[in-house]
Amino acid sequence: MKGIEHIGIAVKNLEIAIPLYEKLLNTGCYKTEEVVSEQVRTAFFQTGPSKVELLGSLTKDGVINRFIEKNGEGIHHIAFEVDDIYAEMERLKNEGFTLINPEPKRGADNKLICFVHPKTTGGVLVELCQEIRG
Amino acid sequence: MKGIEHIGIAVKNLEIAIPLYEKLLNTGCYKTEEVVSEQVRTAFFQTGPSKVELLGSLTKDGVINRFIEKNGEGIHHIAFEVDDIYAEMERLKNEGFTLINPEPKRGADNKLICFVHPKTTGGVLVELCQEIRG
Repeated sequence: MKGIEHIGIAVKNLEIAIPLYEKLLNTGCYKTEEVVSEQVRTAFFQTGPSKVELLGSLTKDGVINRFIEKNGEGIHHIAFEVDDIYAEMERLKNEGFTLINPEPKRGADNKLICFVHPKTTGGVLVELCQEIRG
Repeated sequence: MKGIEHIGIAVKNLEIAIPLYEKLLNTGCYKTEEVVSEQVRTAFFQTGPSKVELLGSLTKDGVINRFIEKNGEGIHHIAFEVDDIYAEMERLKNEGFTLINPEPKRGADNKLICFVHPKTTGGVLVELCQEIRG
């Protein structure tokens, strides 16, 4: 684990949340990106070496809207940057953590990602992410 | 805002959560500290330039246990490092955010802290923290 790459925050309405977070973080949103496979639209803010990623649902019954129905708007996951996602997935499996996706998948922001099940991390949805190189 | 100083995670039992997070983050807990005014015991892990702070309740009806009763274990707040907490509090008030404590207070890890109300940040409890200098 090389540190916190980003914090993912589930929001109902990106058009409202983006200007709110621009004020909160005192910096502009530098990119929005759709990840159709995850049914999300994302908006990124740089804060020091880490990012804040707002997550809005692309579909009414997408995973983010289901999260918000259950928990309200708020922090959805923490993502940690790793050098070698395959090695880190293997290490975590061997330590007893449950990986939600058995193979890395493509996420936003040119990353390979893998989620660790919150049942095995004390309630926190953890994402591993590795920059796609080359 | 100079970046994410730490992520605060509410846990039921620090004796269980500390070894779990040592495995997850692949690093040892480097400090535990009680903040009696907040009724919490904290445990810190370094991950890159940021920290993970586990929060256990010192009392049965403390704020962390009340959070867990309502939300379950999980992420409790994001803390952003600031150079001048008074200036940042003033800026946020002027932008329409509600501060939970009108004056900075002393937190764990030699910090002055202030919380921003989640009702004004889209559901996220935000902490500002500034290193106590001198």
